[in-house]
Amino acid sequence: MAKPAAPGLHIRKWDAGRWSDSPDAVVTEEPLQLLLDGEPLSVVMRTPGQDIELALGLFFAEGIARSLSDVKYVRVSAESGESEDRVEVDASIVDSNQVDVQLAHAPRRRPERSMLASSACGVCGAVLIEDLRRDLSTLGAGPAVDPKILPGLVERLRSGQGVFERTGGLHGAGLFTASGDLVCLREDVGRHNAVDKLVGRMLLDGRLPARDLVLVVSGRAGYEIVQKAITASIPLVAAVGAPSSLAVALAREFNQTLVGFLRGERFNVYSSPERLTS
Amino acid sequence: MAKPAAPGLHIRKWDAGRWSDSPDAVVTEEPLQLLLDGEPLSVVMRTPGQDIELALGLFFAEGIARSLSDVKYVRVSAESGESEDRVEVDASIVDSNQVDVQLAHAPRRRPERSMLASSACGVCGAVLIEDLRRDLSTLGAGPAVDPKILPGLVERLRSGQGVFERTGGLHGAGLFTASGDLVCLREDVGRHNAVDKLVGRMLLDGRLPARDLVLVVSGRAGYEIVQKAITASIPLVAAVGAPSSLAVALAREFNQTLVGFLRGERFNVYSSPERLTS
Repeated sequence: MAKPAAPGLHIRKWDAGRWSDSPDAVVTEEPLQLLLDGEPLSVVMRTPGQDIELALGLFFAEGIARSLSDVKYVRVSAESGESEDRVEVDASIVDSNQVDVQLAHAPRRRPERSMLASSACGVCGAVLIEDLRRDLSTLGAGPAVDPKILPGLVERLRSGQGVFERTGGLHGAGLFTASGDLVCLREDVGRHNAVDKLVGRMLLDGRLPARDLVLVVSGRAGYEIVQKAITASIPLVAAVGAPSSLAVALAREFNQTLVGFLRGERFNVYSSPERLTS
Repeated sequence: MAKPAAPGLHIRKWDAGRWSDSPDAVVTEEPLQLLLDGEPLSVVMRTPGQDIELALGLFFAEGIARSLSDVKYVRVSAESGESEDRVEVDASIVDSNQVDVQLAHAPRRRPERSMLASSACGVCGAVLIEDLRRDLSTLGAGPAVDPKILPGLVERLRSGQGVFERTGGLHGAGLFTASGDLVCLREDVGRHNAVDKLVGRMLLDGRLPARDLVLVVSGRAGYEIVQKAITASIPLVAAVGAPSSLAVALAREFNQTLVGFLRGERFNVYSSPERLTS
């Protein structure tokens, strides 16, 4: 994982009335410029590393590319600024904050969320879900997951999150088999990015749709986490934090099992509890 | 605060091997359609309530409007979809997910982040900060803040966050005077939204630039939180969670005091510690 923690810096610490000076590490956050067919598409704030996975996962979630055959190439590209424009920039920072995705054909969908292009008819959660129903399928039955394994998945996520231990600043996301084996773990300063990186990895590995996997996230489960997981056909999402109303509505609509507050030996099931067979 | 928690729902709870059924409350997340001069601009996922503050705060942070005199009107507008298009939508959900901002003159800045419109020269943290220097000013000295008051501010934020207690799902943000009195508190499913709502409130109250206030946030301090606070001239930002590298770099560049890991009687100071005089 490339430079997930920034070089050490010195900070002041306060502890019950006493000051001290101390070295410290913080999580690296840098912008990533995404190019689609050579044109700047957007900038994502992320923790550097697995940038190709991030770009592919994001494009998958947005419906711009739904399989590797949609992609002609994807590469971390040199930034093409004329050198005289950037002499003031520390060369050590400028290395690979750009990913260039060339599609094999016209985009399957205009490269923006359909909801962002929504007309003046307004939006609400129900309209949003209706809109997603045009693109996404209800998840099939299964797999059966033993509820007893869920608490251990958070432990495995935490123990795999090396940078989090040092900086406390990274969201983690992990994919596991239905029997609890770790398939892939990613971490990022952005909660959605960690999930995009996982989905991008699965896309590269030919493991989508991921109908047999369980997604565990270290933070909360909002609309976007659940939407990205449904798009990847992931049948069970478990979050250490709270779900939102729209996440619950979406999971119920698409028959996804949504678990929240997965802490210690406890958790809540907000939708499709039948996959959790004890 | 309008409907911050969704109507009760029934969930299954697992506790150390035992299942039970239970009523539960989750935080409400709904899309908000922003119109600028009558045209759809973007959709923000947020917790309903203070939507005008949210729109104004976001437009302020983006540089689209920098004072109330830039705004001709702002209103929660009826959604104009033809009724036959939405007969399938539950009328109880569709009430006010749209805010309409009419500017008094052409936008001060194209309504998108300058970074999103960045050319193919690529981006990095240093370029981003250079770009912000064109718009933002380094914060002046002061105010002096007694470090002993900081732990108490988190307590006040938590005790004011009624919905968080019930749902565990809301980010909180509070503005305090330098002596620790609460000025305004907002909560939202989106961490940035809570800050936008605060800044929007200050804009409406004629309290910007907020050179005398302290911002406390319940989560982490990433680039965007710090950027929004600098735009509002807030000299001290304290986060319960971790800062990112870019947040630290930005705070150092603009002479903002950035405090992280504000927990119990401890905290870390990442930049401009001289405001904290003990």
